[in-house]
Amino acid sequence: MGYREFTIEGRNAVLEAYRSGKSIDRLYILDGCQDGPITSIKREARKAGTPIKYVTKDRLDQMSETGRHQGVIAAAAAYAYAEVEDILQAAEEKGEPPFLFLLDNIEDPHNLGAIIRTANLAGAHGVIIPKDRAAGLTAAAARTSAGAINYTPVAKVTNLVRTIEELKKKGIWFVCADMDGTRMYDMDLKGPICLVIGSEGEGVGRLVKEKCDMTAAIPMKGNIDSLNASVAAGVLAYEILRQREM
Amino acid sequence: MGYREFTIEGRNAVLEAYRSGKSIDRLYILDGCQDGPITSIKREARKAGTPIKYVTKDRLDQMSETGRHQGVIAAAAAYAYAEVEDILQAAEEKGEPPFLFLLDNIEDPHNLGAIIRTANLAGAHGVIIPKDRAAGLTAAAARTSAGAINYTPVAKVTNLVRTIEELKKKGIWFVCADMDGTRMYDMDLKGPICLVIGSEGEGVGRLVKEKCDMTAAIPMKGNIDSLNASVAAGVLAYEILRQREM
Repeated sequence: MGYREFTIEGRNAVLEAYRSGKSIDRLYILDGCQDGPITSIKREARKAGTPIKYVTKDRLDQMSETGRHQGVIAAAAAYAYAEVEDILQAAEEKGEPPFLFLLDNIEDPHNLGAIIRTANLAGAHGVIIPKDRAAGLTAAAARTSAGAINYTPVAKVTNLVRTIEELKKKGIWFVCADMDGTRMYDMDLKGPICLVIGSEGEGVGRLVKEKCDMTAAIPMKGNIDSLNASVAAGVLAYEILRQREM
Repeated sequence: MGYREFTIEGRNAVLEAYRSGKSIDRLYILDGCQDGPITSIKREARKAGTPIKYVTKDRLDQMSETGRHQGVIAAAAAYAYAEVEDILQAAEEKGEPPFLFLLDNIEDPHNLGAIIRTANLAGAHGVIIPKDRAAGLTAAAARTSAGAINYTPVAKVTNLVRTIEELKKKGIWFVCADMDGTRMYDMDLKGPICLVIGSEGEGVGRLVKEKCDMTAAIPMKGNIDSLNASVAAGVLAYEILRQREM
């Protein structure tokens, strides 16, 4: 298995993938390329909200498996995305208050996969990720999820802030993971909840953070800065589970 | 130890090595690289009197063990293993009941590094690993530890079972992580404790498991089998920390 197996190369193939409704995570187009087929592909990409990256021929050649990319390579999702509604419905069907994860810019597919795995085992109903600048459901993420990707729905949204606003109207509380927050053991983390995890380097972005209802900190007793993002997600998720089950 | 020439790779890892006073023999930096973190590293290098060599990306790629050098590699004296006694002394100096990790056959250096990172932040006094069939303090482990390797002592022992017997005589309780155990929230995990984590595939080995005083399970609410080993270690370590701090 590998990242590369899930690339779609060449103009017809990429266009066909869009037309068949395939979920494309990211599009790589040869910088300066502007002919008809490329314009059609860009139009489809805009409709689907795919982030486009303009790259050099060398970069495309390097990424290409077939050697015949014709100036365009699409990185496709290995698995289908769910809708946020599906996640809420999963909670309702189980008769449980919703327990969601929202990931702000987790760029490493291994971290994404490990977090989906954790979400599954901690009893979360689904994971929300943003369209831009984030790892998608690639082969690498699928592998690291150890199969959880087949059970735990992952929804990809265009605008995290808007999604948060909509979910807040439905009574879901947003808990931002950040070391400046309140010690997680001292917080009430029961009820409908969405755990917001940021990237390792930068944490949760400012706009998303401002929308959150509370900020939870994992106690740091050591000498270094932060836990690995997937470990932090696990520790917080299980504190939420403990409180829900107690 | 087996690692004569030891490299530390990546910006955080190199910076952290300097800050913790580690002795760096030589620093390799990508020619032309001048951003903030690199400037900080160069400043530390000047303070420490480390010779800097500016090299090409090809050269760095060639030297790199992890494949993720981020433009900087430090050649350092090998990381020294501690003795189990050093770990107990660290606990005593802090006036805390000992909190140890014992890793049974963690073979992936990334998992080892992530667990050392977690041990540091959860306030554990040290990590015990076996000599055989286990990942050691390699460059990959150092990098994944995000610098924790400079602070949290790691002892390598010949015979895990014998070490457990000796530590039990000193009043340390051994808690084996295993999904067949008692739900961790329902256990008393205070006092002098050693958390025993097994490999992802096989869990804790039979001989080691038989020596443990109790078996703690992380509740599994999902569809798949198990958490990632470093996530499981984090979840259990923070349940121990919660109980110790409450």
